[in-house]
Amino acid sequence: MIYLDNAATTKPSLAVCEAVKSTFDCFGNPSSLHGLGLSAEKIISAAKEKTARVIGVRPKNIYFTSGGTESNNTAILGYAFANKKRGNHVITTKIEHPSVIEPFHVLEKNGFEVTYLDVDRDGKILLSEFEKALCKDTILVSVMAVNNETGVIQPFDKLKELMREKAPKAALHCDAVQGFLKVDINAKKCGIDMLSMSGHKIHGLKGTGALYIADNININPIICGGGQQKNMRSGTENVSGIAAFGAAVEGFCRISPDKRTELKNKILENIDNVKINGSDDNSGYVLNVSFLGIKAEILLHSLEAKGIYVSTGSACSSNKPMPSHVLTAMGLTAEEIKGAVRFSFSDEDFDVDFVVQTLKNEVENIRKYVR
Amino acid sequence: MIYLDNAATTKPSLAVCEAVKSTFDCFGNPSSLHGLGLSAEKIISAAKEKTARVIGVRPKNIYFTSGGTESNNTAILGYAFANKKRGNHVITTKIEHPSVIEPFHVLEKNGFEVTYLDVDRDGKILLSEFEKALCKDTILVSVMAVNNETGVIQPFDKLKELMREKAPKAALHCDAVQGFLKVDINAKKCGIDMLSMSGHKIHGLKGTGALYIADNININPIICGGGQQKNMRSGTENVSGIAAFGAAVEGFCRISPDKRTELKNKILENIDNVKINGSDDNSGYVLNVSFLGIKAEILLHSLEAKGIYVSTGSACSSNKPMPSHVLTAMGLTAEEIKGAVRFSFSDEDFDVDFVVQTLKNEVENIRKYVR
Repeated sequence: MIYLDNAATTKPSLAVCEAVKSTFDCFGNPSSLHGLGLSAEKIISAAKEKTARVIGVRPKNIYFTSGGTESNNTAILGYAFANKKRGNHVITTKIEHPSVIEPFHVLEKNGFEVTYLDVDRDGKILLSEFEKALCKDTILVSVMAVNNETGVIQPFDKLKELMREKAPKAALHCDAVQGFLKVDINAKKCGIDMLSMSGHKIHGLKGTGALYIADNININPIICGGGQQKNMRSGTENVSGIAAFGAAVEGFCRISPDKRTELKNKILENIDNVKINGSDDNSGYVLNVSFLGIKAEILLHSLEAKGIYVSTGSACSSNKPMPSHVLTAMGLTAEEIKGAVRFSFSDEDFDVDFVVQTLKNEVENIRKYVR
Repeated sequence: MIYLDNAATTKPSLAVCEAVKSTFDCFGNPSSLHGLGLSAEKIISAAKEKTARVIGVRPKNIYFTSGGTESNNTAILGYAFANKKRGNHVITTKIEHPSVIEPFHVLEKNGFEVTYLDVDRDGKILLSEFEKALCKDTILVSVMAVNNETGVIQPFDKLKELMREKAPKAALHCDAVQGFLKVDINAKKCGIDMLSMSGHKIHGLKGTGALYIADNININPIICGGGQQKNMRSGTENVSGIAAFGAAVEGFCRISPDKRTELKNKILENIDNVKINGSDDNSGYVLNVSFLGIKAEILLHSLEAKGIYVSTGSACSSNKPMPSHVLTAMGLTAEEIKGAVRFSFSDEDFDVDFVVQTLKNEVENIRKYVR
């Protein structure tokens, strides 16, 4: 099996599996007053420390959630509703993940004015457009670190400087689900006020995520109750999942961008009528390619029969018969979108030549039948 | 170790641990179009079926969440906001878990009129009071199946009948976190429209829960995004946690109420100045006892030193220096509340005589020092 769908989800690492198993006996409720509770609480603290360190912040500002989706919802809805008296304008982009875009739709329905920034043909937002959108009424900006369909890095590190001048009241949220550990992100240095992370994109478990919230950032929690996590996120903490998150952060090995470049170049050399989607200013973890004259889903299944796992668009929307909103925003033609396949990588090595040869055969076969 | 804090959380069962381990290799994203996605989706379907069966409903009405707190928040906030045009009145009780009470506080702040039902000295709501509270403006009733601090069973099976007459528009939500599998609950027969469940109270994992939502019940999801779970709960499903949930449901062995009765009687026989809190109409899983003249937290730690783990009040609120709202609602005195200890059981056997003897010694010791 050659698994090239790591942007959808990753295989839990051995260290993660061991960390989970180790929590089976350390099963106390972190809120319990006795020693079993304390031991569970220590697991959480250790995971917080590991997480905080890699994004350059303090452990007390890390909150654990049920995943990237909850982190994004909490940051966007939680912040906007808590701060709506301060201004009515919020900014995001047209290429965000649905767990960012949908909360912005909720804000729109609740009277907020939302600017959805365009991207260029390379899949990047333009700082000049961003600067124009900012105004004194802007209270929130949400821009992803790395796009999930193309791997293109957004200028998340240059936003706060422009915001300080033109929208000093605004908070900066960064959906780093696809960028966390894969590109350098120092939340403090970049002036990021809220940062969303997910466990299962970094060889942790599904159902686990984290949200960094800077000091002085006020949020209405979206899940309330027992007051766990300083009242920001009630509910008994997912100790096994949090242990897994910590182990995933600690054990993550960043890959070289050469792998993506090699696959890209060999596809371009060997297969006709293909188009690479998105800038090379890339995390190195995603290669998005349009195979013209082909329906990507058919290619996906024929590759699967050969043991190669890829995706069309993102997993989150692959069950929906809608053309990719990311590739649409980049101005691709309907044919280019229809034939777009996402290859996404992990530190597990794979035989690039085998993948390219198989791709070439399958693409040629499918094209033959279509004619 | 004698662990008698199972209402706070339980030890994962062997079957649960095995179920979790089995998902480490079946790591696909359930939304992925390829076979790895399908395998993950099958794990979810199997867990849904197991869960639906034990509460007498259909699998398609089961939604997985990050725990009881999220289930309660979704049912209450999600339903009330989606149905606010139909009426302005909602009903709950004074002895609900904070993950129910806090959402009702949110509803109050948003203009809903909330009735918080009293309980009698036995910790039970009165059906006559409930009937009086119902009106044609009532859109939601939320009553727990079993109280988390006392184990007292509420008349959740008799509510819908009264509602049909006096508040036909109202939906019935039942927080069954402490009652699920421990008492008979047939959601369909009882006319329950929404039912909250938690994994870690039944030897599953923390961070996992489920919510039953009947047909025709309309909810605004509290977490939105990729549209997973028919748009009711977005976010990549916690496949490992859901597998654990299914295994926990399947493997759960209900205990005999005799265990509680035996412990209760032996405490009453052997220790002076104690008071049993709450009716014997009990799940059999919780015994709440006030040791007069004692601060429960001190007893908790001295029992811990002897290997016996208990709690004061609920774990969710044990970090807060507030007297139990449940025991307060039952009309206990300050001294009775201060000395209240919760013993909560699982199917793991324990030496009742050792527990009672240790209790007797520790209680006498502490009382000596206090004098």
